[in-house]
Amino acid sequence: MSELRSKAEKLDGADALAAKRGEFVLDDVVYLDGNSLGALPATVPGRIEDVVRRQWGELRIRSWTEGGWWTAPERIGDRIAPLVGAAAGQVVVGDSTSVNVFKALVGAVRLARLTDGGGPERDEVVVDATTFPTDGYIAGSAARMTGCTLRPVPPSEVPAALGDRTAAVLLNHVDYRTGRLHDLPSLTAAVHAAGAHVVWDLCHSAGALPVGLDEHGVDLAVGCTYKYLNGGPGAPAFLYVRADLQDRFESPLPGWNSHAEPFGMSPAYEPAAGAVRGRVGTPDILSMLALEAALEVWDGVTVDAVRAKSLALTDFFLECVEEYVPGGRVECVTPRAHGERGSQVALRCPDAGDVMERLIERGVVGDFRRPDVLRFGFTPLYVGFADVERAARVLAEVLA
Amino acid sequence: MSELRSKAEKLDGADALAAKRGEFVLDDVVYLDGNSLGALPATVPGRIEDVVRRQWGELRIRSWTEGGWWTAPERIGDRIAPLVGAAAGQVVVGDSTSVNVFKALVGAVRLARLTDGGGPERDEVVVDATTFPTDGYIAGSAARMTGCTLRPVPPSEVPAALGDRTAAVLLNHVDYRTGRLHDLPSLTAAVHAAGAHVVWDLCHSAGALPVGLDEHGVDLAVGCTYKYLNGGPGAPAFLYVRADLQDRFESPLPGWNSHAEPFGMSPAYEPAAGAVRGRVGTPDILSMLALEAALEVWDGVTVDAVRAKSLALTDFFLECVEEYVPGGRVECVTPRAHGERGSQVALRCPDAGDVMERLIERGVVGDFRRPDVLRFGFTPLYVGFADVERAARVLAEVLA
Repeated sequence: MSELRSKAEKLDGADALAAKRGEFVLDDVVYLDGNSLGALPATVPGRIEDVVRRQWGELRIRSWTEGGWWTAPERIGDRIAPLVGAAAGQVVVGDSTSVNVFKALVGAVRLARLTDGGGPERDEVVVDATTFPTDGYIAGSAARMTGCTLRPVPPSEVPAALGDRTAAVLLNHVDYRTGRLHDLPSLTAAVHAAGAHVVWDLCHSAGALPVGLDEHGVDLAVGCTYKYLNGGPGAPAFLYVRADLQDRFESPLPGWNSHAEPFGMSPAYEPAAGAVRGRVGTPDILSMLALEAALEVWDGVTVDAVRAKSLALTDFFLECVEEYVPGGRVECVTPRAHGERGSQVALRCPDAGDVMERLIERGVVGDFRRPDVLRFGFTPLYVGFADVERAARVLAEVLA
Repeated sequence: MSELRSKAEKLDGADALAAKRGEFVLDDVVYLDGNSLGALPATVPGRIEDVVRRQWGELRIRSWTEGGWWTAPERIGDRIAPLVGAAAGQVVVGDSTSVNVFKALVGAVRLARLTDGGGPERDEVVVDATTFPTDGYIAGSAARMTGCTLRPVPPSEVPAALGDRTAAVLLNHVDYRTGRLHDLPSLTAAVHAAGAHVVWDLCHSAGALPVGLDEHGVDLAVGCTYKYLNGGPGAPAFLYVRADLQDRFESPLPGWNSHAEPFGMSPAYEPAAGAVRGRVGTPDILSMLALEAALEVWDGVTVDAVRAKSLALTDFFLECVEEYVPGGRVECVTPRAHGERGSQVALRCPDAGDVMERLIERGVVGDFRRPDVLRFGFTPLYVGFADVERAARVLAEVLA
């Protein structure tokens, strides 16, 4: 056995999270695409069968009250909250990430204007120029609809771009392409120093590493639940609004679910208190309760333990790639420094599209991001060190 | 056997849709709340089990392409289209009704301004003053964010309220409380004569009666899929944008799913052609594919046949109520004229909340709408005439 294979065996043997893999439906494939769609937690199929057959089929409309459907968005939000460092009552689940980016960013601009004390009108929205595209598109619409100019800026240049015209800033915690982890505490502090509000997109960090929303005084955040939170395809996203901002948060999508008394059927809108204010319309119960079941795998798991294993996995993957893959064949675009790395490794190679196809044929599933990036996501709850060694070995074979 | 019971028996015997009831999971309850949450179609549980266990659990990320997940919003839209009188390529499924009202209404205001030829700026949004509240709340936000004034007007007074300031009008096809059916053709024509655009909310008509979107030249429409379309709790809503308006339709929620080349990951937004332009973020696959399975019950069914049975059901219910219920105990607020009646009957009585509780205890499920309305919805695909007779008889017992 090669040295790296026996090292993998030792690392797996010492892995306190190893047993968690048994709580997922997995096969012989090395699944390194959990940052696109998380694997199926074993509790989900039975739960969904109950939701469909009994809760919908037998109890029907009674489930809205007796079955806890109505309160699911905030109940599941409270289950996600500790995973992103938030106290209860600040996270609500529902709608897509894109829709939540719109709510959060329009809300942030309105907050900045409410709290402004003199000076020019705040009429700029700063957005990460390297963002996953939907955030930029939605930010463009949010800016247009609030009378702001959109200013795309690379994250490293954000502090210098802030000023008394800045209303709101939309940033990604982890870059979806390179896997770079941005410095949430210092960027948040810089935005606040400029008198603006920040919205963090946690799609590639929630469930993968500590976020510390409350600790770092983040204003608003959104995130995806179908990547590291394994909620299922298109599972609803979440919205965080910091407790002390909630009573001034004005959603641009004030649907009846966000009303103080939704069944009062009043023609006058009066927003609910708390995170519920971020709700919009009737929640998609099937997708939402699949997510709730999926979150049970987090029982007894700390995000710190996940982060420690995540870094060990990506360190080991880089070590194996260096050892196995012919020199110069790939270039790692993910930072080496732990403080700058998410839970993925992105390797640049000119024929990345073809390479990923051949990897998938050989049972190693990552994904391809145009034009030339091989992207491998490491979900510590179900990826082990032997998987990592095998992935690097198969990659080397394909590239040879 | 009473005269009405034998009449019910005859009507059920002659009902060409009677066999459809067997395609739903039902019990001994008389379920007259399908206008709140449709009953479970029998094909859904098996389909969802396949979606969860095989498509998500085994194929995982491959299902986005191989399993048809990615194209589900427009594919399911095309399945709904004929039910609302639309040719293919104009309906897309996704997000809640509230979110779609926002897309449609902002889009309508922008269209009105694009096509305007001189005159004052169009800066008024007219909304049905008796609307289900979420439409009014969202219309308020859409108006605010497009620099318009919101003007709530009772539907009968809408034609007189229109003018050269009117940008867009949001109307309900069927009033959620009274069950009144509004005159879609003539109101649409009136809005067009004023140079404005109309958005119809079809929540209480889609799947219950002919809508004729194309025939009547409707501009935009939204609707719910968990009432008469039986898509399941919180199933995604739909958006209709008339074909010739699509290339000028500007969504306020331009998420990456609406991009001409979503996987190009371009920072510049370029909207897709067709109904796809109404998409936003990643679709909630579990809820969406439950809806797709639910729509199979429409195979071989025409909306005209559903409408004919619906009117026969509500006529017969009114006949039974008149015969059984002591005079003066309830007042029918649903119009008697077929041309003004949706697929529900609303009865006003001062103690409606208590009465509905006692009805439900006795196996007749409708719902209560504050302050004093008993609401009974009739879904022709699974409600029969014996159900109707029994509901009226139990109502009379409770009211005696």
